[in-house]
Amino acid sequence: MADASNSVPTSARKTDIPDIDGATADVAITTGPIRGSSKTYQQIDHLRVPGRRVHLSNGEHLDLYDTSGPYTDADPHLDLEAGLPRTRDSWNRPDPVDGASTQLAWARAGLITDEVRYIAAREQMTPEFVRSEVASGRAVIPVNHHHPESEPMIIGKAFTVKVNANIGNSAVSSSIAEEVEKMVWATRWGADTIMDLSTGKDIHATREWIMRNSPVPVGTVPIYQALEKCGGDPVKLTWEMYRDTVIEQAEQGVDYMTVHAGVLLRYVPLAANRVTGIVSRGGSIMAAWCLAHHEESFLYTHFDELCEIFARYDITFSLGDGLRPGSIADANDAAQFAELHTLGELTKRAKAFGVQVMIEGPGHVPMHKIVENVRLEEELCEEAPFYTLGPLATDIAPAYDHITSAIGAAMIAQAGTAMLCYVTPKEHLGLPNRDDVKVGVITYKIAAHAADLAKAHPRAQERDDALSRARFEFRWNDQFNLALDPDTAVAYHDETMPAEPAKTAHFCSMCGPKFCSMRISADVRDYAREHNLVTQDDIDRKLAADMADKSQQFLDAGAQVYLPLDTVGTP
Amino acid sequence: MADASNSVPTSARKTDIPDIDGATADVAITTGPIRGSSKTYQQIDHLRVPGRRVHLSNGEHLDLYDTSGPYTDADPHLDLEAGLPRTRDSWNRPDPVDGASTQLAWARAGLITDEVRYIAAREQMTPEFVRSEVASGRAVIPVNHHHPESEPMIIGKAFTVKVNANIGNSAVSSSIAEEVEKMVWATRWGADTIMDLSTGKDIHATREWIMRNSPVPVGTVPIYQALEKCGGDPVKLTWEMYRDTVIEQAEQGVDYMTVHAGVLLRYVPLAANRVTGIVSRGGSIMAAWCLAHHEESFLYTHFDELCEIFARYDITFSLGDGLRPGSIADANDAAQFAELHTLGELTKRAKAFGVQVMIEGPGHVPMHKIVENVRLEEELCEEAPFYTLGPLATDIAPAYDHITSAIGAAMIAQAGTAMLCYVTPKEHLGLPNRDDVKVGVITYKIAAHAADLAKAHPRAQERDDALSRARFEFRWNDQFNLALDPDTAVAYHDETMPAEPAKTAHFCSMCGPKFCSMRISADVRDYAREHNLVTQDDIDRKLAADMADKSQQFLDAGAQVYLPLDTVGTP
Repeated sequence: MADASNSVPTSARKTDIPDIDGATADVAITTGPIRGSSKTYQQIDHLRVPGRRVHLSNGEHLDLYDTSGPYTDADPHLDLEAGLPRTRDSWNRPDPVDGASTQLAWARAGLITDEVRYIAAREQMTPEFVRSEVASGRAVIPVNHHHPESEPMIIGKAFTVKVNANIGNSAVSSSIAEEVEKMVWATRWGADTIMDLSTGKDIHATREWIMRNSPVPVGTVPIYQALEKCGGDPVKLTWEMYRDTVIEQAEQGVDYMTVHAGVLLRYVPLAANRVTGIVSRGGSIMAAWCLAHHEESFLYTHFDELCEIFARYDITFSLGDGLRPGSIADANDAAQFAELHTLGELTKRAKAFGVQVMIEGPGHVPMHKIVENVRLEEELCEEAPFYTLGPLATDIAPAYDHITSAIGAAMIAQAGTAMLCYVTPKEHLGLPNRDDVKVGVITYKIAAHAADLAKAHPRAQERDDALSRARFEFRWNDQFNLALDPDTAVAYHDETMPAEPAKTAHFCSMCGPKFCSMRISADVRDYAREHNLVTQDDIDRKLAADMADKSQQFLDAGAQVYLPLDTVGTP
Repeated sequence: MADASNSVPTSARKTDIPDIDGATADVAITTGPIRGSSKTYQQIDHLRVPGRRVHLSNGEHLDLYDTSGPYTDADPHLDLEAGLPRTRDSWNRPDPVDGASTQLAWARAGLITDEVRYIAAREQMTPEFVRSEVASGRAVIPVNHHHPESEPMIIGKAFTVKVNANIGNSAVSSSIAEEVEKMVWATRWGADTIMDLSTGKDIHATREWIMRNSPVPVGTVPIYQALEKCGGDPVKLTWEMYRDTVIEQAEQGVDYMTVHAGVLLRYVPLAANRVTGIVSRGGSIMAAWCLAHHEESFLYTHFDELCEIFARYDITFSLGDGLRPGSIADANDAAQFAELHTLGELTKRAKAFGVQVMIEGPGHVPMHKIVENVRLEEELCEEAPFYTLGPLATDIAPAYDHITSAIGAAMIAQAGTAMLCYVTPKEHLGLPNRDDVKVGVITYKIAAHAADLAKAHPRAQERDDALSRARFEFRWNDQFNLALDPDTAVAYHDETMPAEPAKTAHFCSMCGPKFCSMRISADVRDYAREHNLVTQDDIDRKLAADMADKSQQFLDAGAQVYLPLDTVGTP
């Protein structure tokens, strides 16, 4: 793989970030607009809804959904220590309904919240449609009241497919500053949410920096921090220790939490004869606890208390699949689907408390077993948004698992998954660095967008069409700027044709100046237009009428054109 | 993207290649075994069938299909100027049947050729099954009698999905030596065939070097060279010029040729209102010729003569899709499917001459329109092997089109495509270099293998299972060596944990030494085995029986184990 994605974007700048001890760290934050784009804000009453506008050389533009927060403003006013503005603090917040201050409770009560209106503008849907999807539980809006810096977004299969990026340090690598930059970097390239999976020291401080500076919802797995509190020994975990950790994180503003409450004692031995056993970290922690105590999981037995906490802050459950398959061999097995049944039961319990729910899914699944996962999840979990990790469609390509999993991700999203958890090239091998994060996000934006197209989401094809038109008309800069990653597209083009005139030339490096199939096509179009040829009948009539004389005319007019290869693809 | 794939494989060596003028070029050929593997040869009478054996640290091994030729032998005896040994010259060749000296004619006559026996051994199928698939036209064996250096292989949906890598220089880049190394490099990583799409100077000499040194079938698009002969002006093309080019290439040993004989005059205007017109180079050349002369394509009118030539050498038709869509907007349109109908007619004509046929397919197709392409191709073209370029599932990610297309490729292969033409990260932007070739091949091996799994191809899952078991048992080197790209897997792992002991450690960089879900799983397995727990009933009985005392036993025995994250994936 070439390393062009390392390059600093044309208009990106770096802002120093102080490290936790007040010293300035080596890592800086990437700011400034994405190549060829500017930030837009749509004002709806007191709501200021962000967007991104790609400016085209023909005077047109394309407006895109934007996840990047103020960091991509032309002149961002950032104070990382103070955090982003606490915008949502000034929004209207309805009174609790049946004890729940949640988007679900309000939506069921028929209330259109500011968050719903904001999202309706972003998604270009009506507020009423957004509300109804939330009320039915088919969509969630992860917005902890204590994360007022976030720009509300929605996860549900009626909306564009979303992408989550995992970040977080571990015992053996990375600093807080690096993790904050990973968050900014991931959202720059389109991550809709991020999960902080830190397991090393400074979990609380790392999360605080991320929360206060994150424009997107942040998810966590509280059991990781709880485990740190008991020295890494799962047997010493208690409900009280876990509950206090959840409250600590709730106070910081965590928007959704992964809870592996479906790993029941009696399911654990079902994983015994698997090729890869239990591969979920949370799942294995709870399995170890259950077996050691020979008791039912405290996450399951105390689930109602958890719901009460979540209802106060409006934290969304991400019900974890602790028994998800870790290999092709283990896909769709008894352990996995037993747990899914329990997640269905927990979904109903959580919703009874007014708490929003999404369901996590696999993992490693061969293509022919993917759709069954979605159908079963929808059936058992009342169509709660499905949130899947890939799945990887084969196990044989470590170092390329962003690709093995993008195949599965695109297919499972087409079938109805609402959010995809990215996988980076480092999966199974190490922790992702900044470059891996970008590759992971872009790869998953591809999978998500491919699914949007396949689901015929309104407006999804606009970007494809705009880019294809730019390609056809040799508007090279427009093609780059409409791409998911303009910087790498430019870099690859410039490897063979760096000169600025090449970006307006009616040819490219694949064929050189003498050939161009695109150019021939333009001639075909001119010919058809000139002679009013639309249907096959028109064409046949025309051809019969003037087989001979048109020949000479075409020869005179334009046959001496450039003739090129569109690609070095199939000839 | 990181640049680890640039690294020279552990056991790879470099052999200088003389340039065409006799001087030694800068580029060397990569030789030597792939990491952790050795070359095997199975002797069946006078046939010596190659394979690759991955040696595992637990004393086991896994045998794999191998495409790399003698270059990966432990001690290869190579003479690039002389070329590879002309092995097939000494094989038995049956007499022509009805004028055709082709695998198709012989298979129909019930003859089991040496090529069929060789392929049966490689594919682990019976010779009779291989023969019957060829006889029905559902599979092809591209083996020009003048390419005796090649190791026969088969393309058909009953066999493993194959991958083609395009190489070739153009007017603006690359040398012969580079192209020969790209061929060796592509087959090292698993390319089953290569196409030489050279368009610059020295087309004949470049092809001669590639042919004489290629262990895999080589495909070309003769119209490219024919066009060079008339100075790049498609209007000056004639049937005679084209025919002579085909014979020149046939004499050199080209195994299959792309022929865009389905681009009929009356179809051309159907492309006029497309977003991206005609993007196939061959298609646009013929469209320009047809419009300029107002005559039917000479490829179509002289198709029978072409069949007679192909039948003499046993060249396989790859009937080109000159009107394939170049964007999501143009997928499955009237122009594309009109041409496909004509390809169906040409398939029947070619087979009547005893000539083998495969059919080229798109291109750019959104996921929900992919399967229709396969069904229509099978219906119209008598299930001739489908050979598709991706397709790209979205247009919005130039620089990542290996990924956008791997999604479509995996799906179309699952539906029945027999060979996938790779797409590299440089698609639409420039010509692929050596690194791009590797990324393209590995990405397409992923798509092909994912489809083999989804089609439940016998033995496909063996490699996944072997790798997953190695992963579960912390046999790091085995995991790397079983991977499609061991070198990059090692490089990524070593970024965080380079020390040799880390490769046998029961933990990895994701969690560090203190945590390991894989380790917990092993404990669960031990527990279940000890107590004979297989079904959910066993488990429930056991749990009821000894809820209390087992708890202490597990605590004593192994609960104090490492607890880690399998990945930084979903928690």
